[in-house]
Amino acid sequence: MTVTVGEFLFQCLEREGMTEIFGVPGDFNFPLLDTLEGYEGIDLIDNRNELNAGYAADGYAHVKGMAALITTFDVGELSASNAIAGAYSENIPLIHIVGSPDSNDQKAERKIHHSLMNGDFDVFRKVHEHITAYAVKITADNAGIEIPRAIRIAKENKKPVYLDFPMDQVLEPVGPSKDEENEEGTDSEPLHAALEQAKQQLDQAGNTVLLVDFNTLRYDLESHVQALAEKMNVPVAQMLQGKSGFDEEHPQYIGMYAGALGDQDVRAKVEEADCIIAVGLLWSDFNMAKYTADLDTEKMIVVHPRSMAVAEREYENIYAVDALKALQEWDYREEGAVERITSIYDEVVGAPEEKLAAATYYPRFQNMLKQDDVMIIDTGTLSYGMSQVRLPSGALFISHGAWQSIGYATPAALGAAIAADERRVLLFIGEGALQFTVQELSSLIENGCKPIIFILNNQGYTIERYLNIDHPYADYNDIPRWDHMTLAAGFAGGRDLFKTEVRTNGELDEAIQQAEQYDGMSLVELIVTDPMDAPEYLHNLRENEKEG
Amino acid sequence: MTVTVGEFLFQCLEREGMTEIFGVPGDFNFPLLDTLEGYEGIDLIDNRNELNAGYAADGYAHVKGMAALITTFDVGELSASNAIAGAYSENIPLIHIVGSPDSNDQKAERKIHHSLMNGDFDVFRKVHEHITAYAVKITADNAGIEIPRAIRIAKENKKPVYLDFPMDQVLEPVGPSKDEENEEGTDSEPLHAALEQAKQQLDQAGNTVLLVDFNTLRYDLESHVQALAEKMNVPVAQMLQGKSGFDEEHPQYIGMYAGALGDQDVRAKVEEADCIIAVGLLWSDFNMAKYTADLDTEKMIVVHPRSMAVAEREYENIYAVDALKALQEWDYREEGAVERITSIYDEVVGAPEEKLAAATYYPRFQNMLKQDDVMIIDTGTLSYGMSQVRLPSGALFISHGAWQSIGYATPAALGAAIAADERRVLLFIGEGALQFTVQELSSLIENGCKPIIFILNNQGYTIERYLNIDHPYADYNDIPRWDHMTLAAGFAGGRDLFKTEVRTNGELDEAIQQAEQYDGMSLVELIVTDPMDAPEYLHNLRENEKEG
Repeated sequence: MTVTVGEFLFQCLEREGMTEIFGVPGDFNFPLLDTLEGYEGIDLIDNRNELNAGYAADGYAHVKGMAALITTFDVGELSASNAIAGAYSENIPLIHIVGSPDSNDQKAERKIHHSLMNGDFDVFRKVHEHITAYAVKITADNAGIEIPRAIRIAKENKKPVYLDFPMDQVLEPVGPSKDEENEEGTDSEPLHAALEQAKQQLDQAGNTVLLVDFNTLRYDLESHVQALAEKMNVPVAQMLQGKSGFDEEHPQYIGMYAGALGDQDVRAKVEEADCIIAVGLLWSDFNMAKYTADLDTEKMIVVHPRSMAVAEREYENIYAVDALKALQEWDYREEGAVERITSIYDEVVGAPEEKLAAATYYPRFQNMLKQDDVMIIDTGTLSYGMSQVRLPSGALFISHGAWQSIGYATPAALGAAIAADERRVLLFIGEGALQFTVQELSSLIENGCKPIIFILNNQGYTIERYLNIDHPYADYNDIPRWDHMTLAAGFAGGRDLFKTEVRTNGELDEAIQQAEQYDGMSLVELIVTDPMDAPEYLHNLRENEKEG
Repeated sequence: MTVTVGEFLFQCLEREGMTEIFGVPGDFNFPLLDTLEGYEGIDLIDNRNELNAGYAADGYAHVKGMAALITTFDVGELSASNAIAGAYSENIPLIHIVGSPDSNDQKAERKIHHSLMNGDFDVFRKVHEHITAYAVKITADNAGIEIPRAIRIAKENKKPVYLDFPMDQVLEPVGPSKDEENEEGTDSEPLHAALEQAKQQLDQAGNTVLLVDFNTLRYDLESHVQALAEKMNVPVAQMLQGKSGFDEEHPQYIGMYAGALGDQDVRAKVEEADCIIAVGLLWSDFNMAKYTADLDTEKMIVVHPRSMAVAEREYENIYAVDALKALQEWDYREEGAVERITSIYDEVVGAPEEKLAAATYYPRFQNMLKQDDVMIIDTGTLSYGMSQVRLPSGALFISHGAWQSIGYATPAALGAAIAADERRVLLFIGEGALQFTVQELSSLIENGCKPIIFILNNQGYTIERYLNIDHPYADYNDIPRWDHMTLAAGFAGGRDLFKTEVRTNGELDEAIQQAEQYDGMSLVELIVTDPMDAPEYLHNLRENEKEG
């Protein structure tokens, strides 16, 4: 049986566990899509535009570990580029598959539509070289080697890769294929040296804290981190970008560490520790709470995916899994139970008839969460507020901590819902962020997804009002007012939805109950009249910036 | 009076005739937007997302000659990149202004949000080097030179340029400024030689045709072309991408030339001419009617913006205006009136109670057009069909002939409406294309624009069904059905609109009348039940591809 280039591609993707691919049709990707339509094992989930396809794939990868999208040459691939670069920033392996013009047209430098009209057909591969870990033009001859190579690079580096398929190559028989060797693994010499130094550090420590961060999630280190924590019996805190990397119902969990902006009891516990073991740490401005986080690197043992740092000394070629296992083999163990720190939103407050405000709706969100929920939170006041909510076991928290592209969450919720079809999906989004990618509500409905969507309508870009200290009421932070209920009905095109607007605590309580009972997509719009309504975290941030 | 970098930027843009700038706020462009908010003479038109801002700016530039947009570092600028590259492909001068992180954060290679988290802050300028004519990082020191330089390059080359403003530089006093020299102008030697050869060509010609194309519009050559046509008294045809480059009510105008796919009388006239003078010709696949255009370059005098080609011999450094003026100085003049060729849609056909079909709605569109209308047509069956409609004098036809990015037209209509606020604006868009950028309907309403919008609902991506010869009914060409009337009400958020669905010729006639009388935005949805409903042009294309 002859296998075509297109079939080979889909076989490779299926082997990685993908059962859906996102994308938008265009004439240069017809051979890819026609092959896919005839291919059993992977379905196309078509999106309303290519940026949304990229975000959807990203959301899918958060659940399934990897994802792919298909776009068309130039117009489509560039529309997706924000999502591709976002996946680079956020360490998400995405396979970006692009259908491009016939090789002969490319060779002849013809002025084909969707091109720059300058005969250069490599320009967008070159663009993608800047925002992916690997970018390659596929031919029937090289497909057998390059497709597995690109997928391997994506998987090992947790980065997007780019595959350009000239349309005439897709239906050709694939050339000889080869699976290249995986990476080498841990180098025992630096591991040994790092452990030696780490041991000295720990031996002197009276109290140690474990900090769970970003790459714990990306490199699937959760179970190893938990095993280490339990072996050492130390308190565990999470960084903002590490949220849901550790079970927040675990008795050793103390809360989120966010420098001057987050919980001050957690802060004291972390900053006063003699030793901090940090896993997958990312030194970003968001994660470091606008660099108010005061982490003394001299006291730290940092486990990176492929290296370690002990008291600022770097050791290369160490796989995190090996480091975490080796650390477990020691006899460091603290006495007694870890002291529980209550979280700011543990208690549901606010009378039913009172207007909604951050202090009252975040506890209600925390209260409604169930085990294994998949939550997608857009960038905005919600991403700060929800980071301080305590999650039930197994909950997955998906948000853009590094890239922070507003509008990410709606399409990402589609991707997550497709990937996690047995789990409950919750989308939390501001009405400003919703506007960027709103049409993907339609794809959620079209695909029978049943998320509960909370739209926080706080009268404009409230997050921008907080970040622009001097001009909180600039005109450009006002946005057109939409009638979200009517809009949702328009996207539904006659299909049923549960949708409601709420203004008080009691109305929110009731809406949550109804949404939970409804078998279909639910939309709950929280109408908050104060344009400066925001979680305590942002009040702290604003005060801190004013002082600084 | 000290002038800041930001103020200087806006002074330079205002000098080019811009009274509005498009964009989306983000924390790194706050100093730019705050400066703009305090700057008299230019208003910010804020868009629902950055791709839409880019398209809107493009539409604005079609009317005003040049446009600018402001986006934020990485996430915003990449979202706009499809529009920026599109402007490159379509020869539209756009000034892409990006607010980026503080220079000190960039120098320190901090892991700032919206970055790739690798300390590289130049990567997106490098990306833009591929899709603009100039990409530069602005400092207070270089702003006085680099800003005027970038604008000059955009204007002279009709290409987008890219200016990166680290946020700390915007409020600094601008350094010394300099306006560099303009380009040299025409070199008389090659002009003389080209004219000599052209004269020989014309002397032997019994009949000549003038072909008006793409760069006629981009380089404002319309009046020079008309003067030449009148002097020579020759028939004038337009190429697809040159539409509205010549007055279609002019007695010498014969119609659109589109090889085997368009009008066959026009085709005969063009292909049988002894000499063809083509102005601003672009040899693209769309423009050349899938390369069925049979233009004998040995018989042609081609006037490019900065060069000429006579019978395939190239002459460089000739400005089109000089070439067109010189050609007028000769005594070539044909006798008698140019024979009029009727256009396919000249006659309104179809009984009122009959269902809408391409053969009946295109004549109605032609019939309703008024002088000076600004029309924006999205890529799809409409861009083929509308190209065959005869326009009244002064009408401006805006469409993506080269780049063909689906979803362009809705935001472009916003830009055109802002730029041409005294003229009537008509948007023609398929329901598939509408989905890509639908939220910009809200910006049209918010800004008080009053376009008449025709949504052609032909049950999916009909254009793709035509282009994919073997699989016209592929699943991926189906799209979710929206209730467009309800949707529009949702975007309007309580404001008034005229909106109606039409299914028959009579209903369309009535809807047009009502829309024309309505003082506000109108939406007319044409519901066509045949998913293969398309203009004759596309039937020809499909037959031609099947044979080929």
